[in-house]
Amino acid sequence: MAAHAVSVLITGANRGLGLEMVKQMVEASHPVRKLFACCRDPEGARAEGLQTLAKKHPNVIVVVRLDATDLSSIKQCAKQVGLEVGTGGLNLLINNAGVLAKSTLQETSAEDMQNAFNTNVLGPMNIIKEFLPHLRAAAKASGIPGMSTSKAAVVNISSFLASMETVKQSYALFPAISYRISKAGLNMLTLCAAEELKDDQILFSLLHPGWVRTDMGGEEGQIDAPESVQGMLSVMASLTEKQNAAFLDYEGRPLAW
Amino acid sequence: MAAHAVSVLITGANRGLGLEMVKQMVEASHPVRKLFACCRDPEGARAEGLQTLAKKHPNVIVVVRLDATDLSSIKQCAKQVGLEVGTGGLNLLINNAGVLAKSTLQETSAEDMQNAFNTNVLGPMNIIKEFLPHLRAAAKASGIPGMSTSKAAVVNISSFLASMETVKQSYALFPAISYRISKAGLNMLTLCAAEELKDDQILFSLLHPGWVRTDMGGEEGQIDAPESVQGMLSVMASLTEKQNAAFLDYEGRPLAW
Ligand SMILES: NC(=O)c1ccc[n+]([C@@H]2O[C@H](COP(=O)([O-])OP(=O)(O)OC[C@H]3O[C@@H](n4cnc5c(N)ncnc54)[C@H](OP(=O)(O)O)[C@@H]3O)[C@@H](O)[C@H]2O)c1
Ligand SMILES: NC(=O)c1ccc[n+]([C@@H]2O[C@H](COP(=O)([O-])OP(=O)(O)OC[C@H]3O[C@@H](n4cnc5c(N)ncnc54)[C@H](OP(=O)(O)O)[C@@H]3O)[C@@H](O)[C@H]2O)c1
Repeated sequence: MAAHAVSVLITGANRGLGLEMVKQMVEASHPVRKLFACCRDPEGARAEGLQTLAKKHPNVIVVVRLDATDLSSIKQCAKQVGLEVGTGGLNLLINNAGVLAKSTLQETSAEDMQNAFNTNVLGPMNIIKEFLPHLRAAAKASGIPGMSTSKAAVVNISSFLASMETVKQSYALFPAISYRISKAGLNMLTLCAAEELKDDQILFSLLHPGWVRTDMGGEEGQIDAPESVQGMLSVMASLTEKQNAAFLDYEGRPLAW
Repeated sequence: MAAHAVSVLITGANRGLGLEMVKQMVEASHPVRKLFACCRDPEGARAEGLQTLAKKHPNVIVVVRLDATDLSSIKQCAKQVGLEVGTGGLNLLINNAGVLAKSTLQETSAEDMQNAFNTNVLGPMNIIKEFLPHLRAAAKASGIPGMSTSKAAVVNISSFLASMETVKQSYALFPAISYRISKAGLNMLTLCAAEELKDDQILFSLLHPGWVRTDMGGEEGQIDAPESVQGMLSVMASLTEKQNAAFLDYEGRPLAW
């Protein structure tokens, strides 16, 4: 179970699904021991909720600055986390930070495309690369055979909009072409990483949180963040090497590529 | 049949598969009437073969500068093509230009990722957008119901490396993570464009040329460019609205997403 992982890092942890994950992980009956809650602007107004939560759990939550589009902040964060976790490593890295523009092909711009690519693909790629030594350390330290999110894992938050199979049904309602391209790219990144790092016993997985009422999902969403996160944490807890490189929704149902 | 299209544009037409397409299209028994053969550097050494061919077919081949990563060159090219084709429009646009870096996740860089994204995704996106008026004109001018490459179509040259389904089998031999991510992005772009522009009766399709002995494919490739292009042209000729948004190889076999 994700909550059994000793150390967890979550990006975009200051609001939406990221903040709800932090909340549920520290308030679980078996809370994580160390939770690196990353956000772009820890001192800003958008991180107030996270800071309040961190004050309630000062031994567990460490708020760290990380901007997914800024490599130096990623390196800096990886360094700090390395000092804190030591040879125990980082058990679970959750790439949750993301941006969405709703535009169609005809409305979108190179800037839209670049933003989505930088945050949703390049960001997770750089983060995975910089935290790889800590994930490897965790896999090594565990001593348990097989794969799990309590041993060494990367969970990338994708979307059903990344599914090629379902563009026909969903495009009219949700065009978001730059987002779809970026999340399809994230899916491919995850599959490649899973293959490349399977001998290191690092599990990779893609989760779709459902259509959730957050700033991104909007008010028409189908579920609230607590339900989505409860589902995702229980899916994370169930993952083994059999689900390496899987693309699942928050109820554990596989999605088509 | 592609060769029945009145006007065709091919990017990356100075070598490899692009040059071979130009050759076969002008030497066919029903040659195209106007072929815009685009390349980055029409006066450079790498375009010599194309220029020689263009001199043999001065009424058909128009060599035009187009760099897929340079929006102003795309706009300039679209303007020139518009003047030449007039209300007849452009029947077939083939996004063939592409770059490949072979690196793994651990070897790749942000620069690799950006190059692949700019050339293989942003390039085709900008090109589709700038040529859309000419494709629409062609669909309107045709008068024939349905979709075909001789009416109004975009063929994007993808790769089996874009297939999520097959990463497990192919990654060890061909990692090329930045290329895979970009071609998966191209697939998604194509699916979205197909959906958005179906009422304009513009056909979109993704073709995998096979593993071809070109500069990109290398000497270990399985087939030569003439065989690949012969196959792709015959697949293009067979496309109808039933294959809109399809992902096919040079023998017409569907590939998994
Ligand atoms: N909500 C849904 O229906 C839904 C559906 C499918 C998938 N998802 C995915 O779920 C994840 C979370 O979505 P959400 O609904 O919680 O979205 P949200 O409410 O818009 O929150 C997005 C989070 O990402 C952070 N972020 C954006 N750009 C960042 C950057 N460059 N560096 C660091 N953090 C950055 C934001 O931080 P700031 O406050 O600094 O902007 C914020 O914490 C995303 O990956 C999203 O694509 C959501
Ligand atoms: N060969 C294979 O086995 C294989 C397999 C699957 C898919 N493909 C795809 O098939 C297409 C053609 O590949 P190929 O084998 O013919 O490759 P190639 O021999 O390397 O030729 C690539 C072509 O793309 C052009 N190009 C690259 N960047 C460009 C840019 N920014 N603007 C305009 N043109 C640019 C090159 O022009 P310069 O001379 O100026 O560099 C060249 O004409 C590519 O999309 C490739 O991904 C090939």
